[in-house]
Amino acid sequence: MNTEKINLLRQEMIKEGIHAYLVPTNDFHGSEYVCEAFKAREYLSGFTGSAGTLVVTMEEAGLWTDGRYFIQAERELKGSGIRLFRMQTEGVPTIKEYLQQEMKSGQTLAFDGRCISAKMGEQYERELQKQNVAIKYDQDLIGRIWTNRPDLPCQSIWSLPLEWSGKSCLDKVEEVRSVLKEEDAEALLLTKLDDLMWLFNIRGGDIPCNPVALSYGYIDQEQALLFVQEKALTEACRNDLLKEQVTICEYEKIYRWLQNLKDKKVLIDSDKCNYSLYKLIERKNLPVIKENPTESLKAVKNPVELKQIRECYRQDSAAVIRFIKWIKEKTKENPLTEIQAAAYLDGLRAKIPGFLELSFETICAYGENAAMMHYGAKEEQCSAIEPEGLLLVDSGGQYWGGTTDVTRTIVLGEICTEIKKQYTAVVKGMLSLSQAVFLHGCTGRNLDILAREPLWQMKIDYKCGTGHGIGYMLNVHEGPQNIRWSYNKDIAETVLVPGMLLSNEPGVYKEGSHGIRIENILAVKDVSKNADGQFLGFETLTWVPIDTDGIEVAEMNAGELEQLNEYHRKLYEVMKDYLNEEEQEWLSDATKPIG
Amino acid sequence: MNTEKINLLRQEMIKEGIHAYLVPTNDFHGSEYVCEAFKAREYLSGFTGSAGTLVVTMEEAGLWTDGRYFIQAERELKGSGIRLFRMQTEGVPTIKEYLQQEMKSGQTLAFDGRCISAKMGEQYERELQKQNVAIKYDQDLIGRIWTNRPDLPCQSIWSLPLEWSGKSCLDKVEEVRSVLKEEDAEALLLTKLDDLMWLFNIRGGDIPCNPVALSYGYIDQEQALLFVQEKALTEACRNDLLKEQVTICEYEKIYRWLQNLKDKKVLIDSDKCNYSLYKLIERKNLPVIKENPTESLKAVKNPVELKQIRECYRQDSAAVIRFIKWIKEKTKENPLTEIQAAAYLDGLRAKIPGFLELSFETICAYGENAAMMHYGAKEEQCSAIEPEGLLLVDSGGQYWGGTTDVTRTIVLGEICTEIKKQYTAVVKGMLSLSQAVFLHGCTGRNLDILAREPLWQMKIDYKCGTGHGIGYMLNVHEGPQNIRWSYNKDIAETVLVPGMLLSNEPGVYKEGSHGIRIENILAVKDVSKNADGQFLGFETLTWVPIDTDGIEVAEMNAGELEQLNEYHRKLYEVMKDYLNEEEQEWLSDATKPIG
Repeated sequence: MNTEKINLLRQEMIKEGIHAYLVPTNDFHGSEYVCEAFKAREYLSGFTGSAGTLVVTMEEAGLWTDGRYFIQAERELKGSGIRLFRMQTEGVPTIKEYLQQEMKSGQTLAFDGRCISAKMGEQYERELQKQNVAIKYDQDLIGRIWTNRPDLPCQSIWSLPLEWSGKSCLDKVEEVRSVLKEEDAEALLLTKLDDLMWLFNIRGGDIPCNPVALSYGYIDQEQALLFVQEKALTEACRNDLLKEQVTICEYEKIYRWLQNLKDKKVLIDSDKCNYSLYKLIERKNLPVIKENPTESLKAVKNPVELKQIRECYRQDSAAVIRFIKWIKEKTKENPLTEIQAAAYLDGLRAKIPGFLELSFETICAYGENAAMMHYGAKEEQCSAIEPEGLLLVDSGGQYWGGTTDVTRTIVLGEICTEIKKQYTAVVKGMLSLSQAVFLHGCTGRNLDILAREPLWQMKIDYKCGTGHGIGYMLNVHEGPQNIRWSYNKDIAETVLVPGMLLSNEPGVYKEGSHGIRIENILAVKDVSKNADGQFLGFETLTWVPIDTDGIEVAEMNAGELEQLNEYHRKLYEVMKDYLNEEEQEWLSDATKPIG
Repeated sequence: MNTEKINLLRQEMIKEGIHAYLVPTNDFHGSEYVCEAFKAREYLSGFTGSAGTLVVTMEEAGLWTDGRYFIQAERELKGSGIRLFRMQTEGVPTIKEYLQQEMKSGQTLAFDGRCISAKMGEQYERELQKQNVAIKYDQDLIGRIWTNRPDLPCQSIWSLPLEWSGKSCLDKVEEVRSVLKEEDAEALLLTKLDDLMWLFNIRGGDIPCNPVALSYGYIDQEQALLFVQEKALTEACRNDLLKEQVTICEYEKIYRWLQNLKDKKVLIDSDKCNYSLYKLIERKNLPVIKENPTESLKAVKNPVELKQIRECYRQDSAAVIRFIKWIKEKTKENPLTEIQAAAYLDGLRAKIPGFLELSFETICAYGENAAMMHYGAKEEQCSAIEPEGLLLVDSGGQYWGGTTDVTRTIVLGEICTEIKKQYTAVVKGMLSLSQAVFLHGCTGRNLDILAREPLWQMKIDYKCGTGHGIGYMLNVHEGPQNIRWSYNKDIAETVLVPGMLLSNEPGVYKEGSHGIRIENILAVKDVSKNADGQFLGFETLTWVPIDTDGIEVAEMNAGELEQLNEYHRKLYEVMKDYLNEEEQEWLSDATKPIG
């Protein structure tokens, strides 16, 4: 069936004189997760992971994806004839290298320029023109062959009052204007949806789990323009925006509007802005290529946001505590499916006051399924949870007051010493990073090894970063900060500053056997300042017990045991008031000191 | 007196219409340590540290130096009228920022272009021309005012046989030629002295402690030219070079020779090549700005070198063990000066077969003197070592078979708990880094926190890197690898690979009180390879006991105690055969398990 679709695409390619066609996973905004209308890569290939690019030539179709999805992609591509390219693996070419190798002089590479970043588009342009390959970017071939392609979503857009945002839109716009002056730019073209939501203090629902609305923004020293689907705006939201001196324009008009813009120094984040928009601006203006200033402004949560987040994480933790208690008891009685377990947890979250939606589809992965980092159980193919082995549950919610993300690996019965040792190493790494004290100036690359070293000592690695930034009532993944170890001289690192949120999620993934991940969310905080500098550390926001049934006590030294016991002691203190008597009793037992 | 010299310089500046004159610490080769003829900055300012730049304007004279030298510079500049600029300290301008602030349109900045790197020269050029400041680089004003300036040294140049170098000059030249092809360059202009020594398998003695000879090299696909002071070549060395197809030219002829070079793609390391040479090449050729390929080739020690180094470090460690035994016993009898102690250690090294010279001036710093990272005791002003407190000894030798560098902080009497805790944290950090297991792809920035975190937990930092590369019968500091934490997006990091040497030297420096540093040298080694990747680790080359009198056992957990005891157990096994019976007995006691 996927072969048929790819053959239909090839027919269109022939009509247009195209020799290779790229199908990325992006929408027009470079969003990490996209709504149904943009799932062209999934439609064509059958691979459902959140990241991946399909390349179709006359001879071959290949899918590039990263370490999080190797196992899943292998399974989903089976029988499709599509070749899997495991990114960042020895001997595997990048897409660019592949195209350089496969394409000949005089041929044409094409893609929908709205679905590829300016930076990526320019790279293809630069690299392939060396071998005389042309680029076409104004053709959406997928649109021609995709029968019943869903419409663009148009969910209601609402605004965030000051007691939840902590800063008015006008104040944020003024901050952006200051940065523009510093960067010697006259205007900002903002295309990244969560940055737009943050700046205008609005939220939407156009992408599942991401409370964002399709939109663009243009800010200069005089005006702030917001391009949205106007019919989606609530009346209250429209009024709030007007009060904040925002000019509202229709979503699609951005292209026409930019055609008339000229001689402006426009700041563009070429990583985030799409190639079609960029080419439009580049013609008559002077692009200033920089990271969106909203990115780092948004990353540092303000005191109002942090206050809401703390309370939100406690509420969310209570739901996860209830879930763990329930699943540990329930599986002893009779088996549940992963879907049933996830549904129960989702139901607990839905009861929390201020709940909006999940922040991502709950990952409830039993046994060997947990070896897939981003496993999604499906009704027709999901495991039964037995009273043995490990259950990995990674989940979170969107609430008035915050976006949560938490992973626990739950021990449902006896596990062997080797797995216990791995479990213990994950816990040690997670705690070590949580307790870090570091000087201002550190980036996530300085810290990553604290979480990873206990596993590296066992010659085990997890093929992903240790941590990502997290939004406030926004995307569960946001930048610019992160905790990763790998070095890329072309990628700027972000210095960690108080108010930034980071996940802390080391793990073990053993294909065909099991998966372990423990994830807390941390907020960077000031620790103390002296002649040696400003020392920073982390405040832990997540208060869910770590399953001590997974701990091999002999593998932890006294200091590490003390860290774990201290986390559990505080956790009980913080959480007991959110639980009923029976739950308190269970928690008291789950958090009792070990060692 | 220094004011007089600076006033003489100002008179020359007025004659030449110069408004600011830079006096860096460089020789013509960008060497870290320079011979007497190049110590112009010291001559003018009185500051004797190895790194620092003097800037003289009509109104002010300022000295810029880094954290290693803050205390020393403050002391040595006292009364000179020269203002100290503490580099990388909040609120302190860089030299560039200072010049931008102080210099006016139409003014001229000058320096000796042979004593400044091409990169630095270009930066000044670029930044200052924005404000219409001219650059003059062909005037050596210091030469005019420096009475009795020493001549250029011209020590004997000798060659390294294959059983010591492990690779012939011709093979090394061929490796360089391969890199040149990869980099699309036709030739390499090599100006860095230790790289030249490595490439041509020669050694000299033109810089104290650095067995290098003043030289330049030019390598293309056909020829390999070595510019040296020909009279310095031993007959045997000249013959060896000719056998390896090297063309020998007189040292000073490089400038004239380059004047005739044209239309060549010449690889130049703009960080290392001087500005005058660079400007000469730039006129008629196409510079390819890259790191010298010799840098990373030299950094990876070959098996022959490693074998020699292991033995050399044992011999060197035996001398340090003897010294520690002696100083611990001797100070109980009667006080010694720092100079006397250093002389005794230097004497022990001199007895080692194959000893050439020290690899740097022995740092023997008692009590508060140890707070200066690079303290140098002086006959007229040096402390008496009493049977109390801490003595920091950082020392090393140049031998046939290697270059050593080791630091121990020796406890001579009771020390307070706070200092013991600091001592223990330094030991914990040093051991933690030594024991690291890490994936191929890591750079020193990934690892630095392992050494630093125990101190950061106590809100203490040391204002320098944790580790530097080390030469083989060459400079005690070499690149490109290092272990540092601070982030600079413009400085490329070096991935660690087996065969690289690194120092591991965390420390505590408390001005006016004490200093602690423990330094071992590590060699990167393969650990194991599996599906998760190639894991690397370190082999420890240094075998000198860590003074357990400084350890606060309660501050170390079981794992850390085990690491220390294991190091000491192995150390005794390795070293006992290098010691006499009495020394063995002492060592056995010094290395007995604690905790």
